[in-house]
Amino acid sequence: MTKKKNVLFIMCDQLRYDYLSCAGHPTLKTPNIDSLAARGVRFANCYVQSTVCGPSRMSAYTGRYVRSHGSTQNGIPLRVGEPTMGDHLRELDVRCALIGKTHMVADQEGMQRLGIDPDSIIGVHVAQCGFEPYERDDGLHPSTDYDADPVYDTYLRDHGFDADNPWEHWANSGEGEDGENLNGWLLAHADKAARIPQEHSETPYMTRRAMRFIEEAESRGQSWCAHLSYIKPHWPYIVPAPYHDMYSAKDVKPAVRAVSERDNPHPVLAAYQRERYSVNFSRDEVRERVVPAYMGLIKQIDDQMGVLFRFLEERGLFENTMIVFTSDHGDYLGDHWLGEKYMFHDVSVKVPLIVYDPSPAADATRGAVMDHLVEMIDMAPTFLDYLGGGAKPHVLEGRSVLSLLRGEKSSSWRRFAVSEYDYSGERARLALALPVGDCRLFMITDGRHKLVTGPGVAPILFDLAADPDELVDLGRDPGKADAIHRLETALERWLQTPANRITVSDTWVTSADEKFPHFDPLIEQGVLIGYWDEAELAGQYAARERWLAKR
Amino acid sequence: MTKKKNVLFIMCDQLRYDYLSCAGHPTLKTPNIDSLAARGVRFANCYVQSTVCGPSRMSAYTGRYVRSHGSTQNGIPLRVGEPTMGDHLRELDVRCALIGKTHMVADQEGMQRLGIDPDSIIGVHVAQCGFEPYERDDGLHPSTDYDADPVYDTYLRDHGFDADNPWEHWANSGEGEDGENLNGWLLAHADKAARIPQEHSETPYMTRRAMRFIEEAESRGQSWCAHLSYIKPHWPYIVPAPYHDMYSAKDVKPAVRAVSERDNPHPVLAAYQRERYSVNFSRDEVRERVVPAYMGLIKQIDDQMGVLFRFLEERGLFENTMIVFTSDHGDYLGDHWLGEKYMFHDVSVKVPLIVYDPSPAADATRGAVMDHLVEMIDMAPTFLDYLGGGAKPHVLEGRSVLSLLRGEKSSSWRRFAVSEYDYSGERARLALALPVGDCRLFMITDGRHKLVTGPGVAPILFDLAADPDELVDLGRDPGKADAIHRLETALERWLQTPANRITVSDTWVTSADEKFPHFDPLIEQGVLIGYWDEAELAGQYAARERWLAKR
Repeated sequence: MTKKKNVLFIMCDQLRYDYLSCAGHPTLKTPNIDSLAARGVRFANCYVQSTVCGPSRMSAYTGRYVRSHGSTQNGIPLRVGEPTMGDHLRELDVRCALIGKTHMVADQEGMQRLGIDPDSIIGVHVAQCGFEPYERDDGLHPSTDYDADPVYDTYLRDHGFDADNPWEHWANSGEGEDGENLNGWLLAHADKAARIPQEHSETPYMTRRAMRFIEEAESRGQSWCAHLSYIKPHWPYIVPAPYHDMYSAKDVKPAVRAVSERDNPHPVLAAYQRERYSVNFSRDEVRERVVPAYMGLIKQIDDQMGVLFRFLEERGLFENTMIVFTSDHGDYLGDHWLGEKYMFHDVSVKVPLIVYDPSPAADATRGAVMDHLVEMIDMAPTFLDYLGGGAKPHVLEGRSVLSLLRGEKSSSWRRFAVSEYDYSGERARLALALPVGDCRLFMITDGRHKLVTGPGVAPILFDLAADPDELVDLGRDPGKADAIHRLETALERWLQTPANRITVSDTWVTSADEKFPHFDPLIEQGVLIGYWDEAELAGQYAARERWLAKR
Repeated sequence: MTKKKNVLFIMCDQLRYDYLSCAGHPTLKTPNIDSLAARGVRFANCYVQSTVCGPSRMSAYTGRYVRSHGSTQNGIPLRVGEPTMGDHLRELDVRCALIGKTHMVADQEGMQRLGIDPDSIIGVHVAQCGFEPYERDDGLHPSTDYDADPVYDTYLRDHGFDADNPWEHWANSGEGEDGENLNGWLLAHADKAARIPQEHSETPYMTRRAMRFIEEAESRGQSWCAHLSYIKPHWPYIVPAPYHDMYSAKDVKPAVRAVSERDNPHPVLAAYQRERYSVNFSRDEVRERVVPAYMGLIKQIDDQMGVLFRFLEERGLFENTMIVFTSDHGDYLGDHWLGEKYMFHDVSVKVPLIVYDPSPAADATRGAVMDHLVEMIDMAPTFLDYLGGGAKPHVLEGRSVLSLLRGEKSSSWRRFAVSEYDYSGERARLALALPVGDCRLFMITDGRHKLVTGPGVAPILFDLAADPDELVDLGRDPGKADAIHRLETALERWLQTPANRITVSDTWVTSADEKFPHFDPLIEQGVLIGYWDEAELAGQYAARERWLAKR
C-alpha cells in the first residue's frame, strides 16, 4: 500500500528573497530554513504574480495569473466559482486547511446571486479561497472591524494580555521607559521589544496551530495539505525579545539605490517614491531602526522552522510530506528610494522558494540551487502532481516543478516569468492622471532582461546581467530596442493565451483528433454540415464504418 | 407615473449583414425589417465578438468579450458565476426570457462544485445563460440526444407531423416526386419545399411563442426583456412553400472571390478552404441551389417581422419597447472560397443591427444609418441603460449606444472593434500543427484596415477602403507595416485591459480619490503604513479632522 502523502505549504509575508543566509545574506543566519534548502531545492528565481498580498496570494491559491482570477488589488473579492487549489486537492481526498493568512475577501454578492449559503461547507470554502479555515488570521487587527474578533486575540486575553485590541496593544506595541505603550505601527519604535514573551507572539502561536492541525489530520489518517501562512515579517515591524535586539545598524545592508534613480525616475516609480513609506525608508535613520526588527522577525520564523521540522521529523513526516517555504512578495526597505512593495524590482517581486520533495526520485537534486524561472502559480500544480492528480492546463496556468526536483532532463521550461499590478486604487493613478482601466503594469523577464510596461506609460527595462541591482532604466535606450521588442512580443503572446476556457479540458477539445483524418466526426451527432448529396454522405458513413472496424 | 419599459431582442442565426434590402441586397426584399430601420437606427458596422454561435452569443448575453467569459467554442459551458444580461436586468425587476436559441451549455461541474441545484430557479438561470427559458430551442434536433425532446417536436406531432424526429422528417426535409423524404441537411435538396405548411415551420412558431410570452408578461404588468432567437436562416437550408421558390439562380449575387485567394492563401484560410462546406460552396451549382433557399428563409423571417410588429403596434408597445434586430454571425456562402463562418471577412463577422428606441429623444436619428464601430456586446449595456440601470464598466465590456441613438454629440466612440476565434477544436489545428492553447485568432479593425492575428501565424491585413471586398491579404506587405503596427498596438492595449475585476465597481476602486489630496485614507481603517513617529501620525489625523470639518 502506498503511504498517504501530504503537503506543507509555508508562506511568509513580505519576506525578501535575499534575507536568508542560504540566499547569501551576510549577517542574518537562518540555519533551519537553510537545512530545508539542503534537503530540497532552492529556486533562485521565483517570481510572484503580483507584488501585493491579495493578488499574489489569489494567484498562489488558484494557480492562475491575476489576469485570470481577477482579484487585482488587496480587498477585491475573488469571484465566486474561481477554481482553487483546495478544490483540486479535495478531488484527491486531500484535506486542504488554512492556518494563518490568505488576504481573501469573499464575493458575497456573487454568492448571493448563486444562492450559496455562506454558512454551508461549500459556502465557507468559497469564502475562504478554497481552504478549510482551520485558523484564519490575516494578521492585521487594527481597532476597526477589519477582522472581527480573531482567535489570536482571545488567546492573548486568555494569557493575561487584556486590552480592547490585544494584538495591537501587546503583541505589536513596544514599551517606553515608564511602561507606556509605544505604538508598534510607528517605525520609530521598531527597536523596542514587543510587549509579550516571544512564545505568545504570532509566529510561534501559528506554528503551534499548524502542528495541532497536523496532529489532528494524522490521527484521522487523512492526507492533508496545510497552508501555514505567517503574517511576518510584514509590518508592524516589531518583534519580542530576544529578537528585538539580535541585530543592529551594523547588520543592515546598505540601501541599493542610485542618485540617478531619484533624479530622473520613470513617472510610475516617481509616484511611488513620493509615498510616505518610501520617503521614510529612504532615510538611513529609518532603515537602521527598522531593518534589524525585520531581521529579528525572520530569525524568529527560522527558529520556529526548527520547532516545526523537529515535530515533523519525530513523526516521520519528512518521508511523505512535500514541504515548501516561500513568501507572497518582498519589501523594498529603502532600496531604489522605495518602501513597501508594488513595483517590480527583484527585492519586491522575487521571493525565496525552497521545495522539499520526499521522494527518492528527488535525491539527485537535494541541496541544489536552480535558476529556472519559477512562478508562484507553479505550486498548486506541483502539489497536484505530487499528490497524484492529473494536470489541468486549461485551469492551472502554472507548471509542476516535480520534473525539475527529480532532475529530469526536461525538454523545455518556461522562458518568461510574468507578474502584474493594478494600481488604479492608489494615489499613483491620480499622479499619472490615467483612467482606472489603464492602471495596469505587466512585468516580464527572460532572466536576462526585465520589462515593465502597461497602457499609457513608457516601458521600463533592466539589464539583469549588466545591472543586477536594477539601477539603470534602459526603457528609452535605442540600443535596447531589440530586447524590448522581444519581451513585448512574448508578453503579447502571453496576453493572447490566457487559461480562460476553464470548463472543459484540453482532452475534450482534442477528442476528435483521431477521427479527423478518417471521417467527419460530426456525423456521429447527426449534424451534417456542407454535404451536397446522399452519395457524399454515404461515403462518410462508410469511412466511419471502416475506421470502427479497424479499431 | 413612468410607463414600464420593455426590450425585444430579436436575433437571427447566420444572417449576413448584406442580406436585407435596407442593406442594399439587390433582389431580396425585406420591407418589414426595413421599416424597423426606418423607425430606428441601422448600424452598418456591427461586429460580433466571435464568428460561431456559442461564443458570439455568450458575448451577447454577458456583454463581455470571449477572452473574458471563456466559452471559446461551441459546446463549451459558460462558467458558473459569469454575470449575464439576465442577472443585470433582474436587478431592475425586468423579466428576462428566452424564446428560441442560445447555444448555451450549462457548467454542470461548476454548479455541482458550488452546490447549485440545477432544478432551482437560480440553477435554471445559471444553466440557461441568465434567461428564464420560456421556450428554449437550439434549432438542431438531429436524431441523437443533442437536444432531448424539444417542445417544437411535440407541437409538430400534435399537428399531425409524426415521426421519430419530426423536426428533421417534416420541418427540415423535402419531398421527392414519389413522396419520398429528401434529407434537408443535404444541400442538393435546398430547392425543395420543406414538408410542412409554412405556418408550422420554426420561424412562425417561434414568433407566436414570443407573442404569447409578451401577452403573458403584459397581462401581469411586468417589465420584460424578450430574447426572440430565431434558428434561421442557419442550415439546414430548406424552407416551406411559398418561400422555397421565391428566388432562383438569377437572384443569387456572384460569389465575392479572387483566384489569388485560392492560389496563395494564408495557412489558416487554406485550412478552412479545404473543409467540405467550403469546397461545396465554391461550386456555382451549390450556390445556385442553396442561396435561394437562404433568401427564402430570410424572406420568411421578414414576413414574421410584419406579424410581430403589427402585434406590437396593436398593443401600443412601440411606445415603450426598445426593439433590436440582429444576428449572431454571417455566412460565407462561397465568398472567398469559403462556406460557413469561422473566419473574419465582413460577410462572416459583421451582422445586421437595427435598434429602435421609442424615446422621443431618439426622434432625431430615426431612419439613420450609422457607421460607428459597434460590437454585439454593446446590446446588454444598451438595454441596461434604456431600462434605467447604472453602467457597469467593470463587468460589461460593451458600451451603451443610447447616446448615438439620441444624436448626442458623444465625446468619443470606440475606435476599434474586436472579435476572437478559438479554432483548437477543429481540423485547422492539425493542419497548422499548433498546440491547443495557441489556436486563437484575434480580429481588430479601425474601420479602415482589418488585422487578423494570433500566436504562430502571420498576420492577415485587409485595406477596407481600397479593397472593400477583402480580396487581397496585405499581411506581408512592407508598405502596410505602419497599419499593422498601429492595429497590433491597439490589440495589445485591448489585451492588457480586460474587465476581469468583476467583483468590485470602479466607484469602489476610486473611493479614496477625494481624500488622497488631503490625508492618508488608510488611517481611517487603523492601518498605519510607513509613519515614523507620533508627530507624523498626529499630523495626518489633524488633516483628516480639517477635511471632515470642511465637508
